[in-house]
Amino acid sequence: MRLHDPDSRTFASDNYAGALPEVLAAIADANGGHQISYGEDVYTARLGETVRAEFGPHAEVFPVFNGTGANVVALTGLLPRWGAVIATGSAHIHTDEGGAPERVSGLKLLVVPHQNGKLTPEAIETEAWGYGDEHRAQPLAVSITQSSELGTVYTPAEVRAVADFAHERGMAVHMDGARIWNAAAALNMPFAAFTTEAGVDVLSLGGTKNGLLGAEAIVVIDPDRVDGLTYLRKLSMQLSSKMRFASAQLLALFEDGVGLRAARHANAMAARLRSGVEDLPGIAFSTPTQANSIFAELDPAAADRVRTRYPFYDWDRARRQVRWMCAFDTTEADVDGFVAAVREALAQPVLA
Amino acid sequence: MRLHDPDSRTFASDNYAGALPEVLAAIADANGGHQISYGEDVYTARLGETVRAEFGPHAEVFPVFNGTGANVVALTGLLPRWGAVIATGSAHIHTDEGGAPERVSGLKLLVVPHQNGKLTPEAIETEAWGYGDEHRAQPLAVSITQSSELGTVYTPAEVRAVADFAHERGMAVHMDGARIWNAAAALNMPFAAFTTEAGVDVLSLGGTKNGLLGAEAIVVIDPDRVDGLTYLRKLSMQLSSKMRFASAQLLALFEDGVGLRAARHANAMAARLRSGVEDLPGIAFSTPTQANSIFAELDPAAADRVRTRYPFYDWDRARRQVRWMCAFDTTEADVDGFVAAVREALAQPVLA
Amino acid sequence: MRLHDPDSRTFASDNYAGALPEVLAAIADANGGHQISYGEDVYTARLGETVRAEFGPHAEVFPVFNGTGANVVALTGLLPRWGAVIATGSAHIHTDEGGAPERVSGLKLLVVPHQNGKLTPEAIETEAWGYGDEHRAQPLAVSITQSSELGTVYTPAEVRAVADFAHERGMAVHMDGARIWNAAAALNMPFAAFTTEAGVDVLSLGGTKNGLLGAEAIVVIDPDRVDGLTYLRKLSMQLSSKMRFASAQLLALFEDGVGLRAARHANAMAARLRSGVEDLPGIAFSTPTQANSIFAELDPAAADRVRTRYPFYDWDRARRQVRWMCAFDTTEADVDGFVAAVREALAQPVLA
Amino acid sequence: MRLHDPDSRTFASDNYAGALPEVLAAIADANGGHQISYGEDVYTARLGETVRAEFGPHAEVFPVFNGTGANVVALTGLLPRWGAVIATGSAHIHTDEGGAPERVSGLKLLVVPHQNGKLTPEAIETEAWGYGDEHRAQPLAVSITQSSELGTVYTPAEVRAVADFAHERGMAVHMDGARIWNAAAALNMPFAAFTTEAGVDVLSLGGTKNGLLGAEAIVVIDPDRVDGLTYLRKLSMQLSSKMRFASAQLLALFEDGVGLRAARHANAMAARLRSGVEDLPGIAFSTPTQANSIFAELDPAAADRVRTRYPFYDWDRARRQVRWMCAFDTTEADVDGFVAAVREALAQPVLA
Repeated sequence: MRLHDPDSRTFASDNYAGALPEVLAAIADANGGHQISYGEDVYTARLGETVRAEFGPHAEVFPVFNGTGANVVALTGLLPRWGAVIATGSAHIHTDEGGAPERVSGLKLLVVPHQNGKLTPEAIETEAWGYGDEHRAQPLAVSITQSSELGTVYTPAEVRAVADFAHERGMAVHMDGARIWNAAAALNMPFAAFTTEAGVDVLSLGGTKNGLLGAEAIVVIDPDRVDGLTYLRKLSMQLSSKMRFASAQLLALFEDGVGLRAARHANAMAARLRSGVEDLPGIAFSTPTQANSIFAELDPAAADRVRTRYPFYDWDRARRQVRWMCAFDTTEADVDGFVAAVREALAQPVLA
Repeated sequence: MRLHDPDSRTFASDNYAGALPEVLAAIADANGGHQISYGEDVYTARLGETVRAEFGPHAEVFPVFNGTGANVVALTGLLPRWGAVIATGSAHIHTDEGGAPERVSGLKLLVVPHQNGKLTPEAIETEAWGYGDEHRAQPLAVSITQSSELGTVYTPAEVRAVADFAHERGMAVHMDGARIWNAAAALNMPFAAFTTEAGVDVLSLGGTKNGLLGAEAIVVIDPDRVDGLTYLRKLSMQLSSKMRFASAQLLALFEDGVGLRAARHANAMAARLRSGVEDLPGIAFSTPTQANSIFAELDPAAADRVRTRYPFYDWDRARRQVRWMCAFDTTEADVDGFVAAVREALAQPVLA
Repeated sequence: MRLHDPDSRTFASDNYAGALPEVLAAIADANGGHQISYGEDVYTARLGETVRAEFGPHAEVFPVFNGTGANVVALTGLLPRWGAVIATGSAHIHTDEGGAPERVSGLKLLVVPHQNGKLTPEAIETEAWGYGDEHRAQPLAVSITQSSELGTVYTPAEVRAVADFAHERGMAVHMDGARIWNAAAALNMPFAAFTTEAGVDVLSLGGTKNGLLGAEAIVVIDPDRVDGLTYLRKLSMQLSSKMRFASAQLLALFEDGVGLRAARHANAMAARLRSGVEDLPGIAFSTPTQANSIFAELDPAAADRVRTRYPFYDWDRARRQVRWMCAFDTTEADVDGFVAAVREALAQPVLA
Repeated sequence: MRLHDPDSRTFASDNYAGALPEVLAAIADANGGHQISYGEDVYTARLGETVRAEFGPHAEVFPVFNGTGANVVALTGLLPRWGAVIATGSAHIHTDEGGAPERVSGLKLLVVPHQNGKLTPEAIETEAWGYGDEHRAQPLAVSITQSSELGTVYTPAEVRAVADFAHERGMAVHMDGARIWNAAAALNMPFAAFTTEAGVDVLSLGGTKNGLLGAEAIVVIDPDRVDGLTYLRKLSMQLSSKMRFASAQLLALFEDGVGLRAARHANAMAARLRSGVEDLPGIAFSTPTQANSIFAELDPAAADRVRTRYPFYDWDRARRQVRWMCAFDTTEADVDGFVAAVREALAQPVLA
């Protein structure tokens, strides 16, 4: 039963896109017969091998349902009941998870300023104090997002600087990798170069935004830093019964470069879009476009004219900032049409 | 990439089975193009229509990831922070959810005795007291499981008796319908007959155990009883971004009788299994087989002999009780082979 | 400003009584001048010494506000986020704390049958299973109440049996000592004999019910079993700013046998009451009277006649069971008057 | 048993001070005989009358143990499970409660900038958005502190501006009145003028910092805004059994102007201290001194020299900021000695 137009696309969100054909094929392959439920299946075992190959021999993988689940369970596994997390004010865990870190796990967030969506040692330092003081939730983890919520990408050196600063103070390092494939594509480096080798302790490995139906995973890079993840995943309602299908989806991204190719394409479409509109009068950009999202500032009336043809979201209406997001299925023609629409909208006279 | 034998099957769990072909087809149909994320898509809209047709014009549907999520979010929506839930000691929310009700939502469970897995007014009454006493978590909801964790099915009259008793005391009624398709098939009645019309306020509508990759839904039958479910689903980490795929899976069960047919088959296989072994010496049954699971008591050594060929779980080792579960893909040949294995195992001399 | 009659007394609760004169004197002594807040004062330091003398050289003391706070913080310090507590169905943590263990700390309680309010290894065993199974909240602590909610007292050997059974399975042992002074008085033994030496790991040391204005303490007997109690007390809202006054109250009970004398008196009054009514026709007792409470079964109409003169509570109305509680300030005349009232009430004809 | 010098005083904290003599007298009056526990006593009833006289005929009072308890229970009563609280970065609920709002009640805090410790409509506006968006914790309450953590006092008009702004957006208004007596003394107005009449919905009424042993209360000014406070207090472990003693303490502050007199004195000592050092070279003040605390900036070495004689706390070491706190028992001689010590310390040469 098809109820929608499979050829319509937007610039609203990579969550608006569907699934890669390789992913549907992987699900079909994993179907049929019986497999032990709750993660004792062969696809999850194979995913474990893949993750160890990518992230190092001690890495452990815990497939979960969604990014919020990955982030909250990961952070809970890193922190005692009295721990707090330092993150930027743009962090998804602070802005877009409905308060799940606080509600599900009682985690306190200590929010600090960011630079284009990225956390720095200087920003961490503003909250990394009060150790041993029972009146203060103890800052024992930092969380960074790669690529960031503002479409920027940490270099390995930037991750390393954050991680060293954190580890010296006894804090663990979590990376929210909801768009880690776009980061890997942008950096053109293996995952380990900016995770394992840069000091990340636990990673939320994204998948859904890069062409899965819906599957993410927690990758524990340093098992000495976490405790009880098996139990925490279950009691946080993130344990899939027919886990073979989640694992098969995640595996599909690692097979034959499928995931990287999809992310590289989305990034390229974002770059094409940005270069198509960058020099137009009436448009400005406050952050670089390094992955698959573009943050532009323009007249709201012009933005709304474009939006009638290509849906997208306001990011910060007060600052006239919008977000344009490319996905694995964005085409060059989509981008070119969008660029033309922006040009046209900006060319119209602004009414007072 | 296929890593497993698609022809091997067990009697361990309906979660060991994969997905119905109709479900994979529905996902393929829902794929392609862009759809608004987080439930504003056309498949979720259509699911809403279907649910209203099945459960009444006021019904609302909230797809979620898994059964634990459905149960906990549903109960949280029914209860104030000081509420407690009366359920049987065999209830999944008590025995198999890792304490999620307590951890995620701070819900107190008041556990009472059951009759073959079913809750009765008499059992509810043992905990339905202390209203207005601040020292006592207030019993404001009951939760029943249909079909029950012990493979039995509530008649509409039994549900009605529980619901009337509960409502008279100001309690809401939740039904955990993880295997509701098997109940509907067993009763040979529309869902509404033993839910909406029998007084159920909120239902956890199962899907995964009846041939989905993984999708369940909360069905709010009486919206006056719940509050904030939209927010609670999100903050409980049960909001799917690409929800069209969850909704498409659930819709597939309602199309052309797919779900009922699958459940009827599973039930029939269970009945065939039970009748095949019922009269064997050395085997006993303490509960009727009304849906797709059989609870048998037999010598553990004999059970282990069968298990070498057909995996299944102990239920209560102390009582020598095992659970045999049939799924939508269990074949008559599977059952007949299993029956033969049981016969053979019981025929062997028991060694002291 | 006195608003009440300081000579009226009841048999309702030891919480109805006020404070011992020695306690008011201790508060006056601790008053005046400045003392470091939040527990760095000299009275709390001295309490630490006293507790080490009583409970062993490794013992640590954490004054808190009330018994629920002591129990919940103590159990939280003993358990990981996935832990569960085995306790009897009569346990205060289950019946009278408004669900605080579940709400404040997400603790799951596994409730088992009791013998006159006491937990046994056999009862523990019914829930001490499923270790390593992520679907099951992990039973990692037991909680016993001394003296019990039914007025009985564990012998050191009974505590030891529970503790050994628990420790062998990796469970920690918590004792709710809300009425531990009555237990010590009944056993005529030092605290250590039935706590430290009997295998208790953490104790909720009561005070309020034995003549304080309001102060309890967590005594950590085995510091290797608990983690982060300093933080947990604060984040659980149980950290007193002017802690010198709580510590001074608790110290007063340990000075010159004040606490034991008060408890011994309360126990003696309960014994006097029981012996005064024990042989009356129309009254029955299902539990022994070993501390300061008596549980009697009698005709509700007779009970209500007594109650018009001496308030007390029903315990289990369905079983016609009432609770009569003696306190440090109950007088022999109070008891004799009460006994006379019971006699009189039972002598009246019962009306159908 | 006196273990300390009742004549030593500091400038560290009003929590270092003991209790007013009138408070000990009130406790003695409330002692003796039996009173119903858990708040059904005559002193709590009288406190209710007093609170209605002060805060309006609909006001309800709920004594609790401490300020953190008052704040968290009050905010929980104002908010659904998906609610968030807007407060300043200097708010006690954010900086000094060990994460209790997040841990005990899952409350999300949205932290905004302050002006000398005070919240403004402009600051609230930065987070008062996203209503109806399930991804965002819903900002449904604001919390202000009177007098503020930086020793400033909101005028009735400032409270009103915050309250009007909040109410217009559907938010409730909580006031943390840990030092509300100092605010009332500074404003020289009845409580109602800057609470009830200025739009405050729920108040944490302080007592401990103004000369009680330890007692605070939640005052519900608008009962239509809160739900279930009776249950929430209990399940948050803030329900006192012998509540008569807490209520008697709070009543003592309202009798014969005791509380106002104590606060006025503390404020006057702070003013005396500030005027004594204000014009010294080498000292600066970034906030006005309106209640009983002074925030000064000076050379850390000079500060440490003073501290050897008069203990006090650093507030923000990076900014060389210290806090000097006066209490009800601070004497003029204490202040004059302190001023002399500061002069002397600042007169010494600063060593590189």
